[in-house]
Amino acid sequence: MSDRVYKLSEIVNTSTESIEKAIQAALDRASDSIRNLRWFEVVTTRGYIHPEHGLYYQVTLKVGFQLED
Amino acid sequence: MSDRVYKLSEIVNTSTESIEKAIQAALDRASDSIRNLRWFEVVTTRGYIHPEHGLYYQVTLKVGFQLED
Amino acid sequence: MSDRVYKLSEIVNTSTESIEKAIQAALDRASDSIRNLRWFEVVTTRGYIHPEHGLYYQVTLKVGFQLED
Amino acid sequence: MSDRVYKLSEIVNTSTESIEKAIQAALDRASDSIRNLRWFEVVTTRGYIHPEHGLYYQVTLKVGFQLED
Amino acid sequence: MSDRVYKLSEIVNTSTESIEKAIQAALDRASDSIRNLRWFEVVTTRGYIHPEHGLYYQVTLKVGFQLED
Amino acid sequence: MSDRVYKLSEIVNTSTESIEKAIQAALDRASDSIRNLRWFEVVTTRGYIHPEHGLYYQVTLKVGFQLED
Amino acid sequence: MSDRVYKLSEIVNTSTESIEKAIQAALDRASDSIRNLRWFEVVTTRGYIHPEHGLYYQVTLKVGFQLED
Amino acid sequence: MSDRVYKLSEIVNTSTESIEKAIQAALDRASDSIRNLRWFEVVTTRGYIHPEHGLYYQVTLKVGFQLED
Amino acid sequence: MSDRVYKLSEIVNTSTESIEKAIQAALDRASDSIRNLRWFEVVTTRGYIHPEHGLYYQVTLKVGFQLED
Amino acid sequence: MSDRVYKLSEIVNTSTESIEKAIQAALDRASDSIRNLRWFEVVTTRGYIHPEHGLYYQVTLKVGFQLED
Amino acid sequence: MSDRVYKLSEIVNTSTESIEKAIQAALDRASDSIRNLRWFEVVTTRGYIHPEHGLYYQVTLKVGFQLED
Amino acid sequence: MSDRVYKLSEIVNTSTESIEKAIQAALDRASDSIRNLRWFEVVTTRGYIHPEHGLYYQVTLKVGFQLED
Repeated sequence: MSDRVYKLSEIVNTSTESIEKAIQAALDRASDSIRNLRWFEVVTTRGYIHPEHGLYYQVTLKVGFQLED
Repeated sequence: MSDRVYKLSEIVNTSTESIEKAIQAALDRASDSIRNLRWFEVVTTRGYIHPEHGLYYQVTLKVGFQLED
Repeated sequence: MSDRVYKLSEIVNTSTESIEKAIQAALDRASDSIRNLRWFEVVTTRGYIHPEHGLYYQVTLKVGFQLED
Repeated sequence: MSDRVYKLSEIVNTSTESIEKAIQAALDRASDSIRNLRWFEVVTTRGYIHPEHGLYYQVTLKVGFQLED
Repeated sequence: MSDRVYKLSEIVNTSTESIEKAIQAALDRASDSIRNLRWFEVVTTRGYIHPEHGLYYQVTLKVGFQLED
Repeated sequence: MSDRVYKLSEIVNTSTESIEKAIQAALDRASDSIRNLRWFEVVTTRGYIHPEHGLYYQVTLKVGFQLED
Repeated sequence: MSDRVYKLSEIVNTSTESIEKAIQAALDRASDSIRNLRWFEVVTTRGYIHPEHGLYYQVTLKVGFQLED
Repeated sequence: MSDRVYKLSEIVNTSTESIEKAIQAALDRASDSIRNLRWFEVVTTRGYIHPEHGLYYQVTLKVGFQLED
Repeated sequence: MSDRVYKLSEIVNTSTESIEKAIQAALDRASDSIRNLRWFEVVTTRGYIHPEHGLYYQVTLKVGFQLED
Repeated sequence: MSDRVYKLSEIVNTSTESIEKAIQAALDRASDSIRNLRWFEVVTTRGYIHPEHGLYYQVTLKVGFQLED
Repeated sequence: MSDRVYKLSEIVNTSTESIEKAIQAALDRASDSIRNLRWFEVVTTRGYIHPEHGLYYQVTLKVGFQLED
Repeated sequence: MSDRVYKLSEIVNTSTESIEKAIQAALDRASDSIRNLRWFEVVTTRGYIHPEHGLYYQVTLKVGFQLED
């Protein structure tokens, strides 16, 4: 544990299904450009009501990833 | 976007099923008296344990709706 | 408990006597236009010192009331 | 001062010119439906960058208005 | 309601399935040692990405339980 | 002062009379099971309006007590 | 209202009687050295349990006073 | 930088023109009694709607000034 | 709206003219290295008083930009 | 990681030497009555100036410990 | 304890050695102009990296001192 | 000062020795990939108790670095 250095980023994503799906999609998308994702914290849970497409859940996540040597 | 005016209200609702169901029920109920609901933010997620009926999820939402001209 | 929907409002009132009197006056006044007041939370306790009339306690309350069917 | 009761509302408005214009427009719009506006507090200052129309300043205001007898 | 005294505790639990499952597991576990659990509030929603086992949802709950006479 | 160790607990109590009575009742009740109570901080002041019994003041206190050797 | 300049100070005082008495004593004491006290806000309400003298209410106030020309 | 000691004060001022004018007026007024003002932070931006004189912007600033040797 | 993923960054910039100019300069500078800037939120408004050059407004913005596919 | 349940407690301790010593002493003391301490978070860092014994660092820690099966 | 009145001030100081040295230097400097310093709370811990002189720890303290009769 | 633009990042690091060592290690590590580090703020101070290796101090820092032209 002594030499683990982490960096935090904030990302936002949405899902029409559930809060968990919005979290998973955000993490999937983040892992495209960030390796070694280790944890996240939900900063805000919001949503939008689209007149035609209905309800969107939107999460803002703070994600932590391990810096590589 | 230049002339959109919104008003915010806070509402509270519960569900025995899930946080998402509590959100949906709150928005459904709010849309009875408020037109043009556009977004929401989850302010708190709480719950109650009823001795007989079990667990209730309770969400407090801040909802934004567009004022009509 | 399953179908209780609440709406929250914020109100401000003052009393020259005590914090409790300011709370009671605020709730009394709110109940003129809002039915089914159920709970409140004290958001801030402030006060004013009037040069002649002395000290005013001022409370800002978030009040919750049950929406009727 | 002894019998002033206030109610607080939250409103959101935008301006392409300045933060002050967004505040003024929000208060103007609010005064259409709310009489006796007395004070406001800026809760958040945000903005949007529209690909074609440029920058929008968006303020969320908590406004206080005096309840009439 | 006049003589209900509550004590609050903070607990943390995880689930690989959903936020609701993490809440339920935390409450189940807490009720092993605490009787008369009455309500909870979600303090933080976090999660961990395990290299092999995938995503864990972790909730920190403040739980309230009634002191017995 | 060098070797005083404190532990903090959160408790909730109500009174129909005043905020101070709710504080005193909470401390009295806490001192049944906790010795050496030394200080408290009011975390929230809330209340309930019972349709028949009227107004209840409810305080949430963080209390500090000295651990014994 | 256009040329009122205020300065804010924070003061702490205690009372064995009530929160209101602690506020009044703090304002009385502050007015010895500060003229033109105009308003206050209660920042925290704490207290101490003295083994012999019983309960002390302690308030921390932010006070505003008008600067003289 | 090693021996710079600062003290912070909070001041409040208003302007009918803009938020920037309210900041400048507050700093000008503070510099009458405080030397070596170095920085400020806007704590709150509020305002008042005067029935006759219109809109006042009011800023609360935390200002830092260097203590002299 | 279903597949918009955003990332948030925090930037700081100053202007001798106004808060709006500091915001615009920060966004202009950010858009040199970040494409698809969509929104911002003002996190803090601070300032510095330079002994010779006068007053600087400094804003800290959280900016959101759309991740490209 | 799937079945780790934690409970959080808040403790306060002091040291005349350093913040780290106050943290260590608090954890040592807590581990007398709590097994399986796993992590802590510094909630506040305060201190007291004793007229004769000089400066005391005081930390309030939130500590997490694993519940045993 | 009944008649202790305190005033709070905020001060900022730096040290190249440690957080504790920055606290001590701030308290030493404050005691030049303030008598009866009794306690402090660390509000923020920041720092600066000087290109030549290296790392500076900077603490902002809220200090409490007893008003004299 | 007029054209300094900064970007903020959040990093996390640990040390078995002290909070200052955790800060230094985080800044050293950050300076491998970020040039022109100028300041930091301690966001949280946490720690872990490893069953065998003892106590780890963990700091989360917000660091500011100057964007190059």
